[in-house]
Amino acid sequence: MKLKLKKNAYGKNAINVSKVIRHPDHHEFRQISVNVSLEGDFETAHTIGDNTKILPTDTQKNTVYALAKDHFTDSIENFGLYLANFFIINNPHVSKATIEITEHQWSRMAFDGVTHPHAYISSGSEKHTATVVQTVDKITISSGITDLLILKTTDSGFENYIKDQYTTLRETADRIFATQCEASWEYTTHKLDFTDLFTTIRKALLKTFAYHKSLSVQQTLLAMGYAVLEANNVVKEIDLKMPNKHHIPFNLDQFGMDNNNEIFIATDEPYGYITGTVTRE
Amino acid sequence: MKLKLKKNAYGKNAINVSKVIRHPDHHEFRQISVNVSLEGDFETAHTIGDNTKILPTDTQKNTVYALAKDHFTDSIENFGLYLANFFIINNPHVSKATIEITEHQWSRMAFDGVTHPHAYISSGSEKHTATVVQTVDKITISSGITDLLILKTTDSGFENYIKDQYTTLRETADRIFATQCEASWEYTTHKLDFTDLFTTIRKALLKTFAYHKSLSVQQTLLAMGYAVLEANNVVKEIDLKMPNKHHIPFNLDQFGMDNNNEIFIATDEPYGYITGTVTRE
Amino acid sequence: MKLKLKKNAYGKNAINVSKVIRHPDHHEFRQISVNVSLEGDFETAHTIGDNTKILPTDTQKNTVYALAKDHFTDSIENFGLYLANFFIINNPHVSKATIEITEHQWSRMAFDGVTHPHAYISSGSEKHTATVVQTVDKITISSGITDLLILKTTDSGFENYIKDQYTTLRETADRIFATQCEASWEYTTHKLDFTDLFTTIRKALLKTFAYHKSLSVQQTLLAMGYAVLEANNVVKEIDLKMPNKHHIPFNLDQFGMDNNNEIFIATDEPYGYITGTVTRE
Amino acid sequence: MKLKLKKNAYGKNAINVSKVIRHPDHHEFRQISVNVSLEGDFETAHTIGDNTKILPTDTQKNTVYALAKDHFTDSIENFGLYLANFFIINNPHVSKATIEITEHQWSRMAFDGVTHPHAYISSGSEKHTATVVQTVDKITISSGITDLLILKTTDSGFENYIKDQYTTLRETADRIFATQCEASWEYTTHKLDFTDLFTTIRKALLKTFAYHKSLSVQQTLLAMGYAVLEANNVVKEIDLKMPNKHHIPFNLDQFGMDNNNEIFIATDEPYGYITGTVTRE
Repeated sequence: MKLKLKKNAYGKNAINVSKVIRHPDHHEFRQISVNVSLEGDFETAHTIGDNTKILPTDTQKNTVYALAKDHFTDSIENFGLYLANFFIINNPHVSKATIEITEHQWSRMAFDGVTHPHAYISSGSEKHTATVVQTVDKITISSGITDLLILKTTDSGFENYIKDQYTTLRETADRIFATQCEASWEYTTHKLDFTDLFTTIRKALLKTFAYHKSLSVQQTLLAMGYAVLEANNVVKEIDLKMPNKHHIPFNLDQFGMDNNNEIFIATDEPYGYITGTVTRE
Repeated sequence: MKLKLKKNAYGKNAINVSKVIRHPDHHEFRQISVNVSLEGDFETAHTIGDNTKILPTDTQKNTVYALAKDHFTDSIENFGLYLANFFIINNPHVSKATIEITEHQWSRMAFDGVTHPHAYISSGSEKHTATVVQTVDKITISSGITDLLILKTTDSGFENYIKDQYTTLRETADRIFATQCEASWEYTTHKLDFTDLFTTIRKALLKTFAYHKSLSVQQTLLAMGYAVLEANNVVKEIDLKMPNKHHIPFNLDQFGMDNNNEIFIATDEPYGYITGTVTRE
Repeated sequence: MKLKLKKNAYGKNAINVSKVIRHPDHHEFRQISVNVSLEGDFETAHTIGDNTKILPTDTQKNTVYALAKDHFTDSIENFGLYLANFFIINNPHVSKATIEITEHQWSRMAFDGVTHPHAYISSGSEKHTATVVQTVDKITISSGITDLLILKTTDSGFENYIKDQYTTLRETADRIFATQCEASWEYTTHKLDFTDLFTTIRKALLKTFAYHKSLSVQQTLLAMGYAVLEANNVVKEIDLKMPNKHHIPFNLDQFGMDNNNEIFIATDEPYGYITGTVTRE
Repeated sequence: MKLKLKKNAYGKNAINVSKVIRHPDHHEFRQISVNVSLEGDFETAHTIGDNTKILPTDTQKNTVYALAKDHFTDSIENFGLYLANFFIINNPHVSKATIEITEHQWSRMAFDGVTHPHAYISSGSEKHTATVVQTVDKITISSGITDLLILKTTDSGFENYIKDQYTTLRETADRIFATQCEASWEYTTHKLDFTDLFTTIRKALLKTFAYHKSLSVQQTLLAMGYAVLEANNVVKEIDLKMPNKHHIPFNLDQFGMDNNNEIFIATDEPYGYITGTVTRE
């Protein structure tokens, strides 16, 4: 029986770029982290250490910084498209280039209704992501959100589930629903106003989460996916990951007090993990 | 030569409490993490394992959850004052109780100008802190901010410093100034509108950072401290920690391009670390 | 165009179990973290909030603790097999159960050649992993290692790679090669002495890494994969992830000193990321 | 009332240095992280942005790398002493230099009893630390350990503590005692064989932890401190931090099973936090 190298890839991760774009009346600050990954005809690098087809990951990094100057001018999606294409065009032995970009969100400070021209504050842990996969004959583009911390204090229940010998959970028609949502959706084409679409889709996700009468995380997850696909024909499918960050009612009975859904233990582990992909038939 | 136990303390850390307060038209969601630390006459616990004066850390935790129901109703400062006093009053052998509270910030979601009654989104990594230290005859109270990620893209330089045989840094009149600021200020009294003061002091810190023409991190740090103390007589002193999160210009010259302060390498380590305390004479 | 739910799964992550097994002459301490994930006929939970086929993740957690008493007695692989089978057998509507177990490594303390019967010290960040996937008609089992921090100070070079307009990296025949290796290998069957195999395979990985004359990370990765498959017929294929944790020579020339491969900047980001799967034809 | 700058300091943190020392028969690999902090006559830097007395933190970093070549040859304590002295001697306006060094531990791999000459594996999360504080007329030196993960499965109890209205903890004569110990001890002089002393003191800490019949974390903490001071006259005092990483018995009664101290929930938060300093009278 012979051995062989199957799937393999290499690249540079965590290329941390910040950029200042100077507009007449204010400075625009952008901060991104880029991952580059290449696949292709690299067999001999593995088998005999022949590096003649290897574009070093250090050079990939330099390329990202150099191209950021002229080509990172609007959305991370468009910069990702430019980068993927650059690596494919300039390296004929590369059959697939994957670019992942994560953007940290910064907001201009505002005081008494006046926005400061060049002072920024972090908008929080929530990040905008984009993934471009380009092969010789195809481009796939996805956008997403990570570390979106959201919760609702009511309109969420969990009842009528299976009971067996290990059941201790009590049914409830009213609980806290908290999640660190990760969403990623694939577009049908790559000529789009990505910035505008991101805003629209993010709002659809938040609004559905907020207004849904939730009977389970699963049900809300599907509703959120539906909302995005129904309102955006350019979205092919959406993948949602919704860990259930449990807030467990603290037992105040033992101290002769009532806990009317007021006091909770906020826990990190263990956590429920609910995932699903909504697509078009 | 004899040995002895000097400073010692014990308590429970990371007591994670979330609370829902139901107002007529909306739900208020609060999430805090509490540290309790007690000092006092615990010598025999150490020397002979006599636990008869030890209030278990598990009980400290239960106490925080139980008291949260009726006494965590407004600011974390007031809840900290209540907790510290409770431990001192109920445990005569405790000579000092320290309560540290960190509040995670959540904002109600808003859609098209309408604030949702019970759906929340995280306001980011920035957290509000409070520390209460109560002894038999004295109460000290401080408030603060941690993980305040702020930056400005100009109005910051660093020049005319010492040059020696190990100097390679180039002087610049225009650089990015980014920091993960931690501030903590002590009040002169504990009967105050802490929520209002926090808002006022936070704004003074941000505004000074934004508008200061910075010749060094040190200079801006002092200006921020001055701004807080000058405008708030109830603040006794303020301690500021301002790590310099370097954004280093990427060398585009090597590729025949100019980097007009546009493209930077965002780094985490190493980082400058500037600290200072501003007080009243 | 209609919408539909595609792939979906739910379960409980980070179920942290520790167990003490009392042997006549010593105590055995085990610490694991278990993830449970179920797939199956859960459509109506998503579409109409019908939870009657949902085994709550809280119950999954309880099940893991309860079954750990009698069935977590030797390898994590065997406990994973038991758990996957339990969920499949007891929940006819579940078509696929995935159990991931990560074991933290603890070693008994030893003093002057004598092993202590019940005092332990952590063996470090390296962890043993196992994944069992069971469907109605198939069981797949993999073992692995994560966070295996290894490095060699020589016998590693990187030369003869592509040079283009963005190349600044210098070729070197002698560099530090450091990685946080993650390996995962699939077995051909699930009736095996997993503990013994883990020891054998781990040693093959380390030994190959140590003795290989590396012309690139890619080449060493393949050699490590080959070594495992050549010596272990029960291994079907192995997946390796080898981030290149760069140690960059510090430029001492600028201070009139030579850096003969002695002084390095240890960096976390950015990092090279090399992955590959070795399989049998 | 006038304002003034009180305590202030600045420096560079996380200067990550790795070094290869080539011995005839093997390579020695060392990895450290250095913090430099300076105090002194820096008032005008804060008040008017006069940087003429500021040694940039970038230069501090370069100095550490450059001096590592000839002066980081044995213990981190000796390198710390050299660095502190260098900054004090060369910067007359600096009144106090603090050097903190953390060393990551690496072990040479061994196969079948043979130690490999240049392949290393991480020894785990445990790190050796050293702190040197030098002023114009005084040198203080401390060594320590951080992230020392240790536990014992028996010989630990907690009973006879205070009970009040919030007590729910059950007394136990037999529990798991797990901690992530941090120790730091000050030496009486700085002419010592620090490497040898570190080994001796570390062993005393571990051995006392292992063999102590613990009635509380407090009691074991004191015993560990005593053991170090009793056997080492050159240690002036020792500071110990011992968070109690709780392993809570899982309630198997509810499923009709007995939990004979076998199955535990391993938790990170909340955690007990016990600290103490043992000194000489």
